[in-house]
Amino acid sequence: MVKYVYTFGGGTAEGTASDKNLLGGKGANLAEMCSQGIPVPAGFTVSTECCTAYYAGGCKLPAELTGQVLAALKKTEANMGMIYGDAVNPLLISCRSGARSSMPGMMDTVLNVGLCTATIPGMIAKTGNPRFVWDSYRRLIMMYADVVMEKAEGLEPALGKGIRKILDEKLDETKHAKGCKSDTDLTADDLKALAAEFKALVAKHLGKPFPDDPMAQLWGGIAAVFKSWNGKKAVSYRRIEGIPDDWGTAVNVQAMVFGNMGDSSATGVAFTRDPATGDNKFYGEWLVNAQGEDVVAGIRTPSPINDDTKNEQNRHLVSMQHAMPETYKELDAIRTTLERHFTDMLDIEFTIQEGKLWMLQCRIGKRTGTAALNMAIDMLDEGLIDKKTAVMRVAPKQLEELLYPIIDPRTEKDAHLLVKGLPAGPGAACGALVFTAEDAVAAHRAGKSSILLREETNPEDVEGMRAAAGILTARGGMTSHAALVARGWGKCCIVGAGGLHVDAKTKTARITGSATVLKEGDIVTLNGTKGHVYMGSLPMMDATENPRFQRFMTMADTFRTMGVRTNADTPEDAKVARSFGAEGIGLVRTEHMFYGEGSDQPLFYLRKMILSNTAEERRAALNELFPFVKASLKGTLEAMEGLPVTIRLLDPPLHEFVPQGVEKQAELARALGIRVEDIKKRGEALHETNPMMGHRGVRLGVTYPEVSEMQTAELTKAGKKCVPEIMVPVTCDVSEIEVTKKITDRVHAEILKQFGLAKLDYKYGTMIEIPRAALLSDRMAKACEFFSFGTNDLTQLTFGFSRDDIGGFMNEYLDQKLLAADPFQTIDRDGVGMLIRMSVDKGRATRPDLKIGICGEQGGDPASVDFCYETGLTYVSCSPFRVPIARLAAAQAALKAGRKK
Amino acid sequence: MVKYVYTFGGGTAEGTASDKNLLGGKGANLAEMCSQGIPVPAGFTVSTECCTAYYAGGCKLPAELTGQVLAALKKTEANMGMIYGDAVNPLLISCRSGARSSMPGMMDTVLNVGLCTATIPGMIAKTGNPRFVWDSYRRLIMMYADVVMEKAEGLEPALGKGIRKILDEKLDETKHAKGCKSDTDLTADDLKALAAEFKALVAKHLGKPFPDDPMAQLWGGIAAVFKSWNGKKAVSYRRIEGIPDDWGTAVNVQAMVFGNMGDSSATGVAFTRDPATGDNKFYGEWLVNAQGEDVVAGIRTPSPINDDTKNEQNRHLVSMQHAMPETYKELDAIRTTLERHFTDMLDIEFTIQEGKLWMLQCRIGKRTGTAALNMAIDMLDEGLIDKKTAVMRVAPKQLEELLYPIIDPRTEKDAHLLVKGLPAGPGAACGALVFTAEDAVAAHRAGKSSILLREETNPEDVEGMRAAAGILTARGGMTSHAALVARGWGKCCIVGAGGLHVDAKTKTARITGSATVLKEGDIVTLNGTKGHVYMGSLPMMDATENPRFQRFMTMADTFRTMGVRTNADTPEDAKVARSFGAEGIGLVRTEHMFYGEGSDQPLFYLRKMILSNTAEERRAALNELFPFVKASLKGTLEAMEGLPVTIRLLDPPLHEFVPQGVEKQAELARALGIRVEDIKKRGEALHETNPMMGHRGVRLGVTYPEVSEMQTAELTKAGKKCVPEIMVPVTCDVSEIEVTKKITDRVHAEILKQFGLAKLDYKYGTMIEIPRAALLSDRMAKACEFFSFGTNDLTQLTFGFSRDDIGGFMNEYLDQKLLAADPFQTIDRDGVGMLIRMSVDKGRATRPDLKIGICGEQGGDPASVDFCYETGLTYVSCSPFRVPIARLAAAQAALKAGRKK
Repeated sequence: MVKYVYTFGGGTAEGTASDKNLLGGKGANLAEMCSQGIPVPAGFTVSTECCTAYYAGGCKLPAELTGQVLAALKKTEANMGMIYGDAVNPLLISCRSGARSSMPGMMDTVLNVGLCTATIPGMIAKTGNPRFVWDSYRRLIMMYADVVMEKAEGLEPALGKGIRKILDEKLDETKHAKGCKSDTDLTADDLKALAAEFKALVAKHLGKPFPDDPMAQLWGGIAAVFKSWNGKKAVSYRRIEGIPDDWGTAVNVQAMVFGNMGDSSATGVAFTRDPATGDNKFYGEWLVNAQGEDVVAGIRTPSPINDDTKNEQNRHLVSMQHAMPETYKELDAIRTTLERHFTDMLDIEFTIQEGKLWMLQCRIGKRTGTAALNMAIDMLDEGLIDKKTAVMRVAPKQLEELLYPIIDPRTEKDAHLLVKGLPAGPGAACGALVFTAEDAVAAHRAGKSSILLREETNPEDVEGMRAAAGILTARGGMTSHAALVARGWGKCCIVGAGGLHVDAKTKTARITGSATVLKEGDIVTLNGTKGHVYMGSLPMMDATENPRFQRFMTMADTFRTMGVRTNADTPEDAKVARSFGAEGIGLVRTEHMFYGEGSDQPLFYLRKMILSNTAEERRAALNELFPFVKASLKGTLEAMEGLPVTIRLLDPPLHEFVPQGVEKQAELARALGIRVEDIKKRGEALHETNPMMGHRGVRLGVTYPEVSEMQTAELTKAGKKCVPEIMVPVTCDVSEIEVTKKITDRVHAEILKQFGLAKLDYKYGTMIEIPRAALLSDRMAKACEFFSFGTNDLTQLTFGFSRDDIGGFMNEYLDQKLLAADPFQTIDRDGVGMLIRMSVDKGRATRPDLKIGICGEQGGDPASVDFCYETGLTYVSCSPFRVPIARLAAAQAALKAGRKK
Repeated sequence: MVKYVYTFGGGTAEGTASDKNLLGGKGANLAEMCSQGIPVPAGFTVSTECCTAYYAGGCKLPAELTGQVLAALKKTEANMGMIYGDAVNPLLISCRSGARSSMPGMMDTVLNVGLCTATIPGMIAKTGNPRFVWDSYRRLIMMYADVVMEKAEGLEPALGKGIRKILDEKLDETKHAKGCKSDTDLTADDLKALAAEFKALVAKHLGKPFPDDPMAQLWGGIAAVFKSWNGKKAVSYRRIEGIPDDWGTAVNVQAMVFGNMGDSSATGVAFTRDPATGDNKFYGEWLVNAQGEDVVAGIRTPSPINDDTKNEQNRHLVSMQHAMPETYKELDAIRTTLERHFTDMLDIEFTIQEGKLWMLQCRIGKRTGTAALNMAIDMLDEGLIDKKTAVMRVAPKQLEELLYPIIDPRTEKDAHLLVKGLPAGPGAACGALVFTAEDAVAAHRAGKSSILLREETNPEDVEGMRAAAGILTARGGMTSHAALVARGWGKCCIVGAGGLHVDAKTKTARITGSATVLKEGDIVTLNGTKGHVYMGSLPMMDATENPRFQRFMTMADTFRTMGVRTNADTPEDAKVARSFGAEGIGLVRTEHMFYGEGSDQPLFYLRKMILSNTAEERRAALNELFPFVKASLKGTLEAMEGLPVTIRLLDPPLHEFVPQGVEKQAELARALGIRVEDIKKRGEALHETNPMMGHRGVRLGVTYPEVSEMQTAELTKAGKKCVPEIMVPVTCDVSEIEVTKKITDRVHAEILKQFGLAKLDYKYGTMIEIPRAALLSDRMAKACEFFSFGTNDLTQLTFGFSRDDIGGFMNEYLDQKLLAADPFQTIDRDGVGMLIRMSVDKGRATRPDLKIGICGEQGGDPASVDFCYETGLTYVSCSPFRVPIARLAAAQAALKAGRKK
């Protein structure tokens, strides 16, 4: 019989921290904490295998589960000294999700399971607190009706708004009728009456009664958690995070402990170090007389657990350190135990029930990039981890945060501060205010930067939060939904900006003590590190002058074996990339210089060339282009002095450079002294049905060899300081490379002679971006000293996906899971990857010392860097700001492969 | 030392007929004829290896050649009893090209080599015919100056027209001055003076004197022939014929014999059977007192060699059979010997020098498709060849002639006959008159059918002859340049239409005895089988009701192992293809039905569907489409009763069906009752940058599953008589096939239930037309019972060549030899072929009984059929008229592989 259930409690457990795949992160860590002697309410974990079996069986719990759960429940009862469903000494339990990888707030939880007509009197007698029991009961009804009876059953939301909202309105109505401000003002009798009304509403709207049998509640709870694995929020989150759909979740069934049993009870969430900065300070928030969900939901602004956690918003609130010094000490000791044991920063949840501390959960804590870097360095220096571990501790994508700009401090002090909040996600962000997640998504699609302003965020907002440049909420603490999610992504975020009064309907926000009313579209700037919100757009500056960052990258480089270059077309880009550690340029696009208008600009002369009718006219126009080309190349090449630089010959189709508008055509005709009709006609003659597969790249070089001649001539004059590599684009046959090489070699020799220059030791190679070139790489390598994979075009042609035209179906493909990922973001290992592997093998069979790189956009994507490492590439090349990411990804790839320099 | 020189003569030879690669076709056959005791002027062949060495050495004859040539020359002198360069008994020689494969008129020849100041008196004494000697001398100067001194040296044409033209003008000038009509009216003295003037002109225009040293003449002649291998004409011809550039030519140096030594001398060209019809009749032409070039050049209309060869044009001329009965008998005996020996029809050249018959050349004769078919059947029946050989004797492409229409005989008898000529190439052709090769090429590019009308053709016209639908010349015989070339291609051709007076300058032609003046653009129809030219466009009819054709195809099928299907979208096409032997349909394009306009046409409802905003509207429009789809499919499927039919789901992007013009948009808007703006907007929304790689094929099925549903529903209703195969286009991942199969299986079941139909045993498969699908064929095969290679798109994506856009560079690629052939005509074995081989291997590894076909246009190309056979495909599918070609090509592929049923 398959073992689906694993118990924990009373200092022992059937699982360990290494059982994450089976028990989920939460379950495995609960087991581990138990084994470490940390006080954990007893319980058991229903495994992820059971989740798989549940879905395989058509959403039915497997039959063999029943006995196992009943046995585990017995053990839990014994450990806690209470009995589930018992009238005198009843045990209450929670059902919580727990996947391999944390998905905060994305799946459902049911608390207080086991409260029913039979157990309520016993609970009241035991606690002497009828108000608490009735409050727990109405919470159970609310949560259970929502999660188990409505959502998990796949019902349409009752009255279009859902049962939870209906019950919430009933609660508000009751409060209003009783003249109560807060939930806590309601009496036990009020709550008892409310529970009865709740049950009536449930039966009316959901068509069946709230179950009064504790076992029925338990099975419903377990199934609901499994069901929520495929809820809309969870699926959407997994898509963004790249979590496979087939992992499944475990269910943790655990004895309830209560933080809301009066002022000697409390609940809290903490990080063993500051998750925003990485500082080695115990960092957390708590609420007296509250349940855990009150903290996470951000409904009440929580108090700091200690002085270290105090900030402007919560400075006045009492800390646990002061209110319960003994319990705090115990918690602080557990913090140390856990960090020593897990050698990492942990995110913990605890509850104090009538003075007794219980640990409800611990997991590796999410952190910002800055925090990840600082913790890695600190823990290395503390001797907690070694260098390899330190390098592995920062996800390459997290470095982005460190590279993104911060607000220029010189202007920030004089800026118009609108309001302050909690610094939930560091860095800075600037954009137009939007008030809904949909608007944030729309702005993102339109290529606009937005700041999502919400009263508080909830899991439905996830896509909008992803799309926004920054997130700002009026409510919630550092461990609220918005803060957790934003931090996971390293996104600039400010929460709990209590001075803001958001009206989502009118899409405006008032500010306490200010006449300013913020409207949709207003530009604001967030300083996520300080929690400051400014009016307008503030200047940003570079944040990389961090010695710890430099130290970390240097350390990573000691493990790295694959080269990292940059794609750069200008001296500025080249310099930035070099400062980020680029070891050369993998791609200079020579057409870059043609992107400026005006009759003194190179584009003008290029157009003159395109509009020429004979090779002579073309050559004359090219001679006028010469100085621009040389000037443009020279600066870029010199910025890479001593390093290799790959210069690609002209790539795009000529028609891209013929002006389209009537006015522009007329203007150009005047400037060139030709007829507008000629320009129009030429434009039409150059028009192509599928330009991506048209007359471009080496095909231009074959038909207009003057262009290659001119480029070679200028390279010969400009290239002496670097190690130039001439790259032929869009090749499909070795003959194209040979014919181009004849031109470049000839012109090179001519120019040397003409100007008495020293011979350049240039290398000669090609882009591999056409499938045929990859297939015939053994031949291509005969004429090439290097290959560079143009994975953008190679992906387009291998899939038959025009990148400009996938908008109509790519989302459907991802939603329907027809493709695992967008192949333009991460190299498709199966298809495109197969071509790349073939090409590498065949190329090296011909020429063992063939240099091979990649210059497509995936070159800066960590998963793609992994692939490039595994495939044996010499280097990856990416945009300047991705260079550190690629360096770290390459180092981690080497470490993962267990190899070292 | 490499042996470069092979002698022949006096009944022995160093080579044999099997040495074609080394000695060229002509050299090998000269050697073979010698060994057979046939009278051949002695000589020697300089091998093709020497040609290769010549080019490898930078266009220098290899040093070791000298001694070998001198020794062979000695042997030739001994055999012929004359001495080269001798003052008393001088031997004259010819230098002729001879490649592996015949290239008539494409390379250069030099005759009369050895005539010089020293040998002229001896020749005059020996022949007693000073006029003949001086005439030979002026011919030598002309030919040598042109071929050896000007062309082979790569000089620009003297005075822009070339030395040959200059000398020709001098000849005309002399004739005019002397009042002569014909060359033969010039006296010995006239010719002697002319020779002196020729030499002066040569020295003046070419900068050096005509060589007077016989050995210098010989070396010049040999080198010039080698050089002419890479002349423009030869290269162009090779491109068309697919002859590799690296084969090289041999040079045949042979003792001259003279057909122009008076009335007992003659020269002729013959075929051992009629090359136009295949009739077993000795067929040839001769000219008394002439050199061979006079026959081939078509300057004089030659006489028939026998009664069998007489026709309307030459009926009045004296035949060899009557004029020289003994010599004719000897020639006829040689004809029999040769056919027995070579077991094929031969093309022979002979010369009679003062009554003695010499065979100058024999080679396998070019023939029309009709002749090839008839000869194969006849020779089989005569026991000359076996069935396998018979099947190999017809080139698959030659069948085209047999399939192309002839003029409907019922209308031909009343048609307006313009003029008669010689029936040089059979079949019929109709088109607009053009007067230059360039115009024929231009008409072809514009997609127009043309008839090329020339006084006579020359090798410079080859590309125009290729481009024209038919060829018509005023001069020349059945063995003239035009006739030979056209016959090789199976192109309709009429030569020697003496009633035509062509004025190439005004692009008009008068007709003897008629007021009609033909102008450029006039439509004429040729009956190439009769030699009749008609005014206007005559109705054509099918020519395949030939029982010999049926017998031949049936015989071929006994050797064939690979299936042949057709691509057909209509019942008509399906019926034609089935009559041509198609064994099913490899591709039904379901979008075919959308090519008719009008609001009662399916296109209207498709547009309604495209302009729908919701899935409901779309489904409603599709319901209106249902009956059309069903009707269209039903007829096509029923025409293939009992055979497999592959139906492809919708393939093209939707925007192709949105009307473009303002008027059409307005009309549609009225008909649909919507706003023009909506149509415009939808068109714009559907517009794609690279539609070939856009939202089409299965991608439409993923986003609009209603379309696949509708198609499946109608197929289920219409498909019961054939064996349907549902094919999913444009797939790149097995998931796309799986998701589509779910739809088709479901809808199929629903329709069966709804209409109480019997289950269709349909097969399910995919096009392999995206490189990724080929690469991942092991996975694709998991969801497929068959693959069909869409080699059009697969070629586009593998090369990155948009077929619509290659016009700008493909010709350059072929001219510069960057690609060996246009990959859209013949499958690129190296690249696309590699993908196909991988796909076949991987697909069959998953599913050993996987059916695999090809439905791209290359399916009817014989070289591609060869490839498909070698790769193990189950069938090829091609357009109806190519079905017999594919059947024969497949049979030949099996025979070539040495396999039989």
